[in-house]
Amino acid sequence: MYNLLKGKRGIIFGALDENSIAWKTAERVHEEGGVFVLTNAPVAMRMGTIDQLAEKTGSVVIPADATNVEDLEKLVLQAMDILGGKIDFVLHSIGMSVNVRKGNHYTDMNYDFTTKGWDVSALSFHKVLQVLYKKDAMNEWGSIVALTYMAAQRVFPNYNDMADNKAYLESIARSFGYFFGKEKKVRVNTISQSPTPTTAGQGVKGFDGFIAFSDKMSPLGNATALECADYTVAMFSDLTRKVTLQNLYNDGGFSNTGVSQEVVDAFEK
Amino acid sequence: MYNLLKGKRGIIFGALDENSIAWKTAERVHEEGGVFVLTNAPVAMRMGTIDQLAEKTGSVVIPADATNVEDLEKLVLQAMDILGGKIDFVLHSIGMSVNVRKGNHYTDMNYDFTTKGWDVSALSFHKVLQVLYKKDAMNEWGSIVALTYMAAQRVFPNYNDMADNKAYLESIARSFGYFFGKEKKVRVNTISQSPTPTTAGQGVKGFDGFIAFSDKMSPLGNATALECADYTVAMFSDLTRKVTLQNLYNDGGFSNTGVSQEVVDAFEK
Amino acid sequence: MYNLLKGKRGIIFGALDENSIAWKTAERVHEEGGVFVLTNAPVAMRMGTIDQLAEKTGSVVIPADATNVEDLEKLVLQAMDILGGKIDFVLHSIGMSVNVRKGNHYTDMNYDFTTKGWDVSALSFHKVLQVLYKKDAMNEWGSIVALTYMAAQRVFPNYNDMADNKAYLESIARSFGYFFGKEKKVRVNTISQSPTPTTAGQGVKGFDGFIAFSDKMSPLGNATALECADYTVAMFSDLTRKVTLQNLYNDGGFSNTGVSQEVVDAFEK
Amino acid sequence: MYNLLKGKRGIIFGALDENSIAWKTAERVHEEGGVFVLTNAPVAMRMGTIDQLAEKTGSVVIPADATNVEDLEKLVLQAMDILGGKIDFVLHSIGMSVNVRKGNHYTDMNYDFTTKGWDVSALSFHKVLQVLYKKDAMNEWGSIVALTYMAAQRVFPNYNDMADNKAYLESIARSFGYFFGKEKKVRVNTISQSPTPTTAGQGVKGFDGFIAFSDKMSPLGNATALECADYTVAMFSDLTRKVTLQNLYNDGGFSNTGVSQEVVDAFEK
Repeated sequence: MYNLLKGKRGIIFGALDENSIAWKTAERVHEEGGVFVLTNAPVAMRMGTIDQLAEKTGSVVIPADATNVEDLEKLVLQAMDILGGKIDFVLHSIGMSVNVRKGNHYTDMNYDFTTKGWDVSALSFHKVLQVLYKKDAMNEWGSIVALTYMAAQRVFPNYNDMADNKAYLESIARSFGYFFGKEKKVRVNTISQSPTPTTAGQGVKGFDGFIAFSDKMSPLGNATALECADYTVAMFSDLTRKVTLQNLYNDGGFSNTGVSQEVVDAFEK
Repeated sequence: MYNLLKGKRGIIFGALDENSIAWKTAERVHEEGGVFVLTNAPVAMRMGTIDQLAEKTGSVVIPADATNVEDLEKLVLQAMDILGGKIDFVLHSIGMSVNVRKGNHYTDMNYDFTTKGWDVSALSFHKVLQVLYKKDAMNEWGSIVALTYMAAQRVFPNYNDMADNKAYLESIARSFGYFFGKEKKVRVNTISQSPTPTTAGQGVKGFDGFIAFSDKMSPLGNATALECADYTVAMFSDLTRKVTLQNLYNDGGFSNTGVSQEVVDAFEK
Repeated sequence: MYNLLKGKRGIIFGALDENSIAWKTAERVHEEGGVFVLTNAPVAMRMGTIDQLAEKTGSVVIPADATNVEDLEKLVLQAMDILGGKIDFVLHSIGMSVNVRKGNHYTDMNYDFTTKGWDVSALSFHKVLQVLYKKDAMNEWGSIVALTYMAAQRVFPNYNDMADNKAYLESIARSFGYFFGKEKKVRVNTISQSPTPTTAGQGVKGFDGFIAFSDKMSPLGNATALECADYTVAMFSDLTRKVTLQNLYNDGGFSNTGVSQEVVDAFEK
Repeated sequence: MYNLLKGKRGIIFGALDENSIAWKTAERVHEEGGVFVLTNAPVAMRMGTIDQLAEKTGSVVIPADATNVEDLEKLVLQAMDILGGKIDFVLHSIGMSVNVRKGNHYTDMNYDFTTKGWDVSALSFHKVLQVLYKKDAMNEWGSIVALTYMAAQRVFPNYNDMADNKAYLESIARSFGYFFGKEKKVRVNTISQSPTPTTAGQGVKGFDGFIAFSDKMSPLGNATALECADYTVAMFSDLTRKVTLQNLYNDGGFSNTGVSQEVVDAFEK
């Protein structure tokens, strides 16, 4: 549309199927002239349809378990090789709670599951960053974005241990963003998105009631996956070079709305 | 109860009637051994029953318009004279929006009313602080508290221009708190209280529906006026000497709750 | 460069001279295909060189005192007339503290000056919004941005009453943003910019030391006026349609940096 | 001093030696009439002098590894048995980063060390809460406090992975605090303390320079361990019953100070 990402190279994690925010982002990045490799865990690739996306965007898919440093090292080296140079943008869109999947309540966690979910959803972001940093794989003024959710700041009771994982993820963005900024002039931010009916999101209990509440609370309504992709494109572009260490809400204003008139009315007798 | 404020002298602004948070605070401060003068605007004194509180707590009432620097100067000098020394604690519990009273919507303000409400609700706090500061009226390790509401951070549509006034008030607490800390070792904080059915609070449109929503959203339910008084006592005591420039939520956890199960359920079809 | 604002119409407040953020924004908006009217207070126009900017960008200048509702009404009507339709973007870049100009310390304010500065720096934003709202002058998915500074959140001792003004301004963005979102699908945000050596900024005491500190604290260094203009373009574009009620830091990461290594080193014996 | 905790029973984690915040808290709780058991990891007990504290306060020490659920279950049951009833207050003051100890930079982590540090410093808090919750061991209106540091919000480059651990810890306080509030009327908060020269704190690189910077930045100076103990007493007392899910700064105002005059002066040429 605007050629905002012309000449830029990237890696996009986490496109499962066409409902994925990462999927929409890949499509929008492609439209804006960016080139990239796609990656996902082997198990997620079997469940989804990432090959269609690769074909559509002229991209290569490199399977990688984002909790495995060796996989990530291979991914980064191959990506630079395939794309013909250092990386300009990275999207981390990975999250999974074993406790949620197994139906364990937040007050009755299995800590092996907690550890696994933390590794996949949060620590994986550090691993990605550390591999990129140690391989010196990012171009100056590159941009790294991870997707998160406001449960990192406020309680959404069904979000379970993903809340804590997202808090850890956002902290990594700040902590690593400091060094990536000082040493490599690379920015690191998180985008905190409205609840989005992705295939992953739909697993959360009470999701429909919550998504309706969120929509009524948000002055502009919930942001869609496509709107998240647009915002991510802006964050990858050269228009936002000094924005770093931030958690950016793409949520129709939910985060700064204490209550909306519709919600008050619902509680008025 | 605990003699937490034994030997401490103070000034309490804004006790209108027995529903007032300032009223409850005066009672609790009295129980804890603190002495104080009470003050309110002449017009508010006629509407309320502050003399009963004065009698009950053995206090003197000094009328003062908190937007009038001369009134405040007299108040502070008289208070030190009556109480026999410098001041240890101050409560600012003053707020009034002419736009709300006149039924003007936030998008259709009368700016003379806005200015008046801002002067009463927000700038008055600076005037109180400036008079105390210039008169060198505070003891070291004294504590100043102003009451506020979370509309300063997030939108509550019926709170109207009081939201902006509270944001300004909280900023004063930080800005002046810096100088009061550095120069006088005095702390300045705001307490952000649950919606409370005071005589003032009841004027706000849709208040009942909102107070019910707030109660259902708060893990411990809304905080009462008495609980706010208790917290204020803690902030006046020597237990919190290094807490300053803070906005402290006394709200049953509302501020960090994104949604509660009851609210999700209400929106689940 | 990208045609991001092709077909969009706007109003830009506060371009004094070529150091102004509003000036740089006007240049960047022009490059991106947007058309606009420029406006400033008559007194500021005499001090600056706005006519050069108008010529360069093919824009009309309409003098308006942003504290004067009648001036603003004329401005908005003329702007729609000149530009040929409703407005898509507005930049509010206005601030002035009489107390700062007169050398009054924050603890020794003249309250007439405080009121004047608040009216110019903060309430003017409400007036602009209210006029746009009542005239139904904004297109759906329009975007309104006001410039602010982090003194609204944390103390910068020399920033004086501008801190409180900015806190009020940011609150207006949320409060009015709610109604503009719900009723008109328009977003309202503030950009919180690094200290910038504009002609206005240079009046602040200790500005050089502070700007050096800020640069050393920020992982990517201070953001320039041009970088602020770029970010504003992104916020005016269709890439950020669901971002509203936000305060967005364009500051090289300063806001989330507690301390940098250089600063620690300066305090290490 | 005030009998604020008379009749209350508790568990205090993490008193290593007389520099520990937990040690000071135990002393202050004892002075206020509270009774408690002390606990620490066996390895920490050997390094420290907890037995002296137990003798001084008439307390029993129960060794427990806070990452081990079985140990925690025994601890909680024994504590109720020894103290003669359910628990009213708990202090979690536990933190350790293996990466810091081994000198690994944040950009060159060993992930086994990261996982171990996260388990000890962050997940242990969930384990403590879950055991208390499932054993129904807390009295109504009980109070649970964990100590944290502002690195959870902003970057302090030498704080390493403890920043991310503290972000996770604070998220647990909110997430579990919701359920503890709704179901048991128990509050859960974190206190974010000034950098404190404890035996643990002293291990952090550049600590002296940082502590000097922090002291100069804070309007009231850094808070001491004793002042943290005082604040914790206030949070355990009945004065703060509706304060929950909060992160409370006990830091002399550091958190809301953007810069102090002394720091600006140091960077002024």
